[in-house]
Amino acid sequence: MTVTTTSTPVPDSRPASAAGLISPVRIAVDCMGGDHGPAVTLPACQAFLARHPDAELILVGLPEAITPAQGWARTTIVGATEVVTMEDPVEVALRRKKDSSMRVAISQVKVGADQAAAAHACVSAGNTGALMAVARYILKTVEGIDRPALATVVPNQKDGFTTVLDLGANVDCTAEHLLQFAVMGSALVSAVDGKESPTVGLLNIGEEVIKGSEVIKQAGELLRSTHERGLINFYGNVEGNDIFKGTADLVVCDGFVGNVVLKTSEGLATMFATFIKQEFTRNIFTKLAALVALPVLNRFKKRVDHRRYSGAALLGLRGLVFKTHGSSDALAFEVALNRAYDAARHRLLDRVHDQIAATLVSMPPEAGSDDSADVGQAA
Amino acid sequence: MTVTTTSTPVPDSRPASAAGLISPVRIAVDCMGGDHGPAVTLPACQAFLARHPDAELILVGLPEAITPAQGWARTTIVGATEVVTMEDPVEVALRRKKDSSMRVAISQVKVGADQAAAAHACVSAGNTGALMAVARYILKTVEGIDRPALATVVPNQKDGFTTVLDLGANVDCTAEHLLQFAVMGSALVSAVDGKESPTVGLLNIGEEVIKGSEVIKQAGELLRSTHERGLINFYGNVEGNDIFKGTADLVVCDGFVGNVVLKTSEGLATMFATFIKQEFTRNIFTKLAALVALPVLNRFKKRVDHRRYSGAALLGLRGLVFKTHGSSDALAFEVALNRAYDAARHRLLDRVHDQIAATLVSMPPEAGSDDSADVGQAA
Repeated sequence: MTVTTTSTPVPDSRPASAAGLISPVRIAVDCMGGDHGPAVTLPACQAFLARHPDAELILVGLPEAITPAQGWARTTIVGATEVVTMEDPVEVALRRKKDSSMRVAISQVKVGADQAAAAHACVSAGNTGALMAVARYILKTVEGIDRPALATVVPNQKDGFTTVLDLGANVDCTAEHLLQFAVMGSALVSAVDGKESPTVGLLNIGEEVIKGSEVIKQAGELLRSTHERGLINFYGNVEGNDIFKGTADLVVCDGFVGNVVLKTSEGLATMFATFIKQEFTRNIFTKLAALVALPVLNRFKKRVDHRRYSGAALLGLRGLVFKTHGSSDALAFEVALNRAYDAARHRLLDRVHDQIAATLVSMPPEAGSDDSADVGQAA
Repeated sequence: MTVTTTSTPVPDSRPASAAGLISPVRIAVDCMGGDHGPAVTLPACQAFLARHPDAELILVGLPEAITPAQGWARTTIVGATEVVTMEDPVEVALRRKKDSSMRVAISQVKVGADQAAAAHACVSAGNTGALMAVARYILKTVEGIDRPALATVVPNQKDGFTTVLDLGANVDCTAEHLLQFAVMGSALVSAVDGKESPTVGLLNIGEEVIKGSEVIKQAGELLRSTHERGLINFYGNVEGNDIFKGTADLVVCDGFVGNVVLKTSEGLATMFATFIKQEFTRNIFTKLAALVALPVLNRFKKRVDHRRYSGAALLGLRGLVFKTHGSSDALAFEVALNRAYDAARHRLLDRVHDQIAATLVSMPPEAGSDDSADVGQAA
């Protein structure tokens, strides 16, 4: 990789106090990731810089592709010679493309003995499996975490967000994994959404504690005892509909269920949108009705616009990585940059570390500890 | 229980040939089940009888509650002295209320050595856990089936239905259970929706065969080999969004995932409906827009009306039982009666029996066979 610093130099300005906010916040961007690459990522970065005067960016990409960013204020350009495509298998991203923009961008957040941290977080729209695998390989997991998790937000009926994790990286989870998700997710919500003690719901098929599979029942017990020790704010079991009701700030489930929940919701939302469009374009009368209803429909559309919920966090790594959907447009990518900025600024990494450390005190040794996790399972 | 036959007597008119349609079709109705009881079930029954000249009903309930049905054509009234409430635990329904309308209605479909079958199917809006447990206790499972499953339909983008099972009765399923669901679900779709060789999708977190948990991968192999033997029409893995896309006629998953899928979809649909209503009632201008858009919005509403998808089937029992949501209104209850009618008319029970028998030929002995299934887990 080649580094070209343009305009302002980038000092390491992390304050020593873990309690204070980080400023300036420096974010590494994989400019080549996603379906659209620099055509989307660069405009998003420009808008992001304009909105955050204390933000700095490290733009990573093929030098010829990111030349438009030459000369931007608060921006460092780092070259990479390869690009991980949306179709590349995990193995290719991990073992062959060692100078990919994805890998170089992730490396910017690596804190090592030999290397000061260059960036506080990394954002990519690249393929999920590859991103999870490379991030895990480069950054390693936080002590006490077996498997990194992928957390996203969905809108809820209270006009807020519900954070859901895990989302497809971890199948066959143990109760301990679900507890880890709860702890990391709580840290995320407190850092990004500013809720100091977010409520945690355990996704189940009924509210009663006797419901669910063996793993879920065990997870319920673990979460309750962790709650009693004051380390998380466990609400109890929640059901699928509670995700959109906003019953708990955070909903924890294994990656299989989380992935199905997210994809099912996407599918239903798409069907609704298709049906509404079909009904309003059926004939001249319905088209006229559409004209009249357009401002209202647009307000509705804005409320459920998935781009507003962009920016899934990879939690449990020794560095912050956020990912957006491969099909993200500039708005969606900018939202992800904002989330990464908020997370870094409020020291999400330290929070995860502290909460995990506190939770592990007096925890029984983990039966289900498994370092050969199914990274790259996510679709 | 007391039997009062009013008007036409009910002969056992099942044709001997398994290939032919059953006519007349006789359905036992738990008139007391659900949030509304006879206020909903009786009008639904009346409408159903008017629509199906070859249908006969056996109405079961507290005698004083179902007197309005006295004198109806093609109707038998059977008294019961107890009612299973929506809050009753499974144990109460199963062990204490032995003369409940639910239990007496289910008993009508029991085919025993000492008792000719009185009804071809039973419909109840009563509490799911109780209904599953009582139906299983009274009717027993079909040979080769470890656990009865609950199957429902949801609308899809092709303006058709996708059948999903299991829906909450069975957690911790084995690959063999998922195969049984596929076989029973195929029989249901062919009987009720008239598709002779419905496609079966296995709900997973990616299309590739290497995706998913160990159980899912094993289930994929079982389904593929059963497909190769020509016994089911296996499409392959499907994802959450495929349910509403209509990629496969039938989507198979364990009861935990199925319950979460259904509840999540209900939650999202409710949120959408709430948001649309809020936007259209925001001020005088949006209310005027709503007036203009009303016919279009109503058409949309009708397409996604959950009442059209009423009538979940309990599969794998030696008798047909259909259940509707406790909050069903007369339309939803009538839709469930129609589904039970179609299933009985097209000999769903024989189809399940035949398909299961064919599938079991040359199947390895079941490792995961477990007759102590978690009946009553459904919320």
